[in-house]
Amino acid sequence: MPEPIDDFYAVIPAGGIGSRLWPLSRADAPKFLHDLTGSGNSLLRDTWDRLEPLAGPGRIAVVTGRAHRAAVEDQLPGIPDVNVFLESEPRDSTAAIGLAAAILHRREPDVVIGSFAADHVIRVPHLFEWSVRQAVAVAREGYICTIGIQPSEASVGFGYIKKAGELLVDGAPEAAVVERFVEKPDLETAKAYFADRSYLWNAGMFIARADVLLAEIAAQEPELHAGLLELAEAWDDRELRGPAVDRIWPTLKKIAIDYTVAEPAAAKGRLAVIPGHFDWDDVGDFASLAKLNSGGRSENLAILGQNPRVLSDAATGIVVSQTKRVISLIGVRDIVVVDTDDALLVTTSEHAQRVKGVVDALKLTGRGDVL
Amino acid sequence: MPEPIDDFYAVIPAGGIGSRLWPLSRADAPKFLHDLTGSGNSLLRDTWDRLEPLAGPGRIAVVTGRAHRAAVEDQLPGIPDVNVFLESEPRDSTAAIGLAAAILHRREPDVVIGSFAADHVIRVPHLFEWSVRQAVAVAREGYICTIGIQPSEASVGFGYIKKAGELLVDGAPEAAVVERFVEKPDLETAKAYFADRSYLWNAGMFIARADVLLAEIAAQEPELHAGLLELAEAWDDRELRGPAVDRIWPTLKKIAIDYTVAEPAAAKGRLAVIPGHFDWDDVGDFASLAKLNSGGRSENLAILGQNPRVLSDAATGIVVSQTKRVISLIGVRDIVVVDTDDALLVTTSEHAQRVKGVVDALKLTGRGDVL
Repeated sequence: MPEPIDDFYAVIPAGGIGSRLWPLSRADAPKFLHDLTGSGNSLLRDTWDRLEPLAGPGRIAVVTGRAHRAAVEDQLPGIPDVNVFLESEPRDSTAAIGLAAAILHRREPDVVIGSFAADHVIRVPHLFEWSVRQAVAVAREGYICTIGIQPSEASVGFGYIKKAGELLVDGAPEAAVVERFVEKPDLETAKAYFADRSYLWNAGMFIARADVLLAEIAAQEPELHAGLLELAEAWDDRELRGPAVDRIWPTLKKIAIDYTVAEPAAAKGRLAVIPGHFDWDDVGDFASLAKLNSGGRSENLAILGQNPRVLSDAATGIVVSQTKRVISLIGVRDIVVVDTDDALLVTTSEHAQRVKGVVDALKLTGRGDVL
Repeated sequence: MPEPIDDFYAVIPAGGIGSRLWPLSRADAPKFLHDLTGSGNSLLRDTWDRLEPLAGPGRIAVVTGRAHRAAVEDQLPGIPDVNVFLESEPRDSTAAIGLAAAILHRREPDVVIGSFAADHVIRVPHLFEWSVRQAVAVAREGYICTIGIQPSEASVGFGYIKKAGELLVDGAPEAAVVERFVEKPDLETAKAYFADRSYLWNAGMFIARADVLLAEIAAQEPELHAGLLELAEAWDDRELRGPAVDRIWPTLKKIAIDYTVAEPAAAKGRLAVIPGHFDWDDVGDFASLAKLNSGGRSENLAILGQNPRVLSDAATGIVVSQTKRVISLIGVRDIVVVDTDDALLVTTSEHAQRVKGVVDALKLTGRGDVL
């Protein structure tokens, strides 16, 4: 087994609810707390298990909401108390990752941090490890480094990263400079990207020296940066932390790290990328969840849940069972059925993206009790 | 208001579970106990209400299983105790209707009885009444009389009755002799029947003098007839009834009244028919239920249930809500969703007939707890 990386700290922002996976994903049971692969583990736990060989158990931090503290500690019994960074409310990814960078930079000035979403699915862990080890080597040289997934199909569901020239860094034979980011394309463009092979999926993974990351934030958003430093200064003093969070956190600008760090760095030629050759999925909706759990065979019915009682006759798609009820499906194709104690969803893969609209409608019509 | 018919007794066989309406219809909550029209009443109660102006409240008998006694009496608080005929187990329609005929014939030798299913839906009650009054007039003349529904479309879901020559009976201007019965036709044949107008839907309604009905049974099934007479003799003696039922009922041949009475009578030219001009539906499956509750508009989503919490986006079909759960339907067409405490069904109108197969499979796989 290779050793963990000495100067590396992994950061897991565990924030989003995953509205497109309602009613499975909820405010009090967000996506990262669910087992979406049938592995028996939550996505958060799987993320931890992937990062542990790279960082070691004492060097993985989680940034999450106060409400999820107990659930996170329950999932990750090995996490040191000082590595759970609690937000009083969601302030987007620059604040979340920037806070971790600021705290860890105070503890360890030369640290390289890597930020990895709590709710993505990755298969073939040794390929993931190899990408991260390369990315850390690149980050040490002062680059912001991302890992872009080598596409396995012409997907219109993800943003893309355009690779440019190779970057000569020891220990990172696949490193390249990023030319630019591209928004989710239409199908024709996606097909061209897939054929080209210099376009990678943007999986939102960032690896950088904490000081480099903070310098980018300072250049783009000086007030936000100042707030983060002030928070970090108070953080490791138990008496000062709470009041500082209550005072400063709610004032921080809500902005994604793509805009404060990744795109500005790319514009300056300071964003690098390592291609990821592992299977990756952000499980963005029930269509992806169905695909992920059907072994890639569209004629299958994927079944998720503990002790599901499902009887199907010529049904395909996915059924998620969170109750003890018998679920009977007859002749429904590409169906999505999510059965929970207080809410039931029936749709199809084709309409999976519209689940978010239902969540919005439930809020507006006073039925937020089931969100 | 016209008076009830002096010599008429209505009989409601309330037997079938309605497997094609599972999981709404159950062994302990059969179809006839449900409100399937949104009227606020069970089908059984609606049947009673339709018959009361014709027979009067003291002259309607219900033949049902012992297990349903309390539910039936709860639905029909006006029913005299002596008019609830309890079966110890289902023995098909000749036994059920024949038992009523035998008991009522002992009480009143010249009585005309009319048998009407407990779980059909009929609209425009005064047209129904007019058909029944004509049928009673015909029955008094010694005919077995049925009411055949004038088709409103070329249905392949029902059997047909072919009308022959007119029958001259006072008070029954529409009476005709039945030429023959026809099984459920294919679509082309159904279209020809619909155009012809001398083919009527067989709705399983029979009106006859009790003695005439019993004589038909005696001619076809003498042992069954003897058993029914023996039961009837014991019936109105509380001490004799129970032992007689336990001893005789389980030995009675299971056979539909179509074979013991209707077809033999038709063969002899002794079966008459009155056309029914009312809306009639046997609500045979969820496709009929959807149609019945969508105002005939296929772009509607029909919703059945008490205080349903349904949120739909571009969904059509039917949802039956028996729980307090929020049900969300997105982009599903002609869908059938039946949500009960212990079982969930998801199918489409097209596959509604296959629900019975699921019920059979649940039995075979040891999940009869939800039947």
